Amino acid sequence: MQTDDNTRHAEKMAKIKVARDKMMQDKQGEKGLIVVHTGKGKGKSSSGFGMILRCIAHEMPCAVVQFIKGGWDTGERRVLTTHFGDLCRFHVMGEGFTWETQDRERDIAAARAGWEKAKELIRDPDIRMVLLDEINIALRYDYLELDEVLAFLRDEKPPMTHVVLTGRNAKPELIELADLVTEMEQIKHPFRAGIKAQPGVEF
Amino acid sequence: MQTDDNTRHAEKMAKIKVARDKMMQDKQGEKGLIVVHTGKGKGKSSSGFGMILRCIAHEMPCAVVQFIKGGWDTGERRVLTTHFGDLCRFHVMGEGFTWETQDRERDIAAARAGWEKAKELIRDPDIRMVLLDEINIALRYDYLELDEVLAFLRDEKPPMTHVVLTGRNAKPELIELADLVTEMEQIKHPFRAGIKAQPGVEF
Repeated sequence: MQTDDNTRHAEKMAKIKVARDKMMQDKQGEKGLIVVHTGKGKGKSSSGFGMILRCIAHEMPCAVVQFIKGGWDTGERRVLTTHFGDLCRFHVMGEGFTWETQDRERDIAAARAGWEKAKELIRDPDIRMVLLDEINIALRYDYLELDEVLAFLRDEKPPMTHVVLTGRNAKPELIELADLVTEMEQIKHPFRAGIKAQPGVEF
Repeated sequence: MQTDDNTRHAEKMAKIKVARDKMMQDKQGEKGLIVVHTGKGKGKSSSGFGMILRCIAHEMPCAVVQFIKGGWDTGERRVLTTHFGDLCRFHVMGEGFTWETQDRERDIAAARAGWEKAKELIRDPDIRMVLLDEINIALRYDYLELDEVLAFLRDEKPPMTHVVLTGRNAKPELIELADLVTEMEQIKHPFRAGIKAQPGVEF
């Protein structure tokens, strides 16, 4: 019985392996991807930082522009700039969440300065991945012009550069342009049970 | 007109700030969370590694057990063990994806060894977060006993330790037990356009 189970398992897995190897063989293309992480769930920024960590592991120069800085300290910035400042450039452009500042002009100016920096980094032929953290918030509030961002990504992004754009409420036109889109859906969140934001989890 | 816009914006944001400050004030609890990243989309493991990066930033000792090792080299392990070996312990228990090995007995032995290591790390009072990467695959194939895993998390996990469990097809009973659950939904994937797995993105 145990042996039958094992034989069946081996046969099933062998079939999966053949199918998978064939699928992967067909995928030979390489290109710089436009990646979007959106949705209301957690993991949009942290998986962006996980990708930055992968780039660092491969010694691929990369960069982060944070469009909206949280009220809390951001641990990622500290650890990335302290240990990998030579591989990863880091720019914090936002002044805090929008409901903290209540100053639309200042938010717009910060978002536009962030976008100018982002264009400079994306154009830099040495940089292989640029994470535009929470840029979707700036696009949603019309702090940045969607058409300008889309046109730049489509026409001026170097072909092999990856650009990762995070934040909830990604614009449909951005999703349309992107190569890889993941929606993080919130199934359960501890805030609802009265648990506050904690280090390591939220920041 | 511009001034009216700005006034309206400031008023709206001030209201959001009052509501949000009140919401955050109610959240005073702290606890070690059971966190699940599941779904078919990308970002389950990379956001787990992003959380590990946050722990490292806060100098919180943490650990990773990888239940299923990919066929490709894992950059995260290299960079974490090279730079942060004192803060982050790393154990690769799997022998490769299940369809690569086609040997159920060996997969079961590797998964059980991984789980023994995981229990040891979770019990260690100095370790603040343990990432059980791709454990959901081992649970799905019944390489591990679900009831044993649930009972351990419920009864033996130290109250302040965070445990992050990743992998698609999370068991409903695990989702029920967890504090924070995110489903990564695949909206668009470049494999469909013939693009292969690329460094920095997939590994």
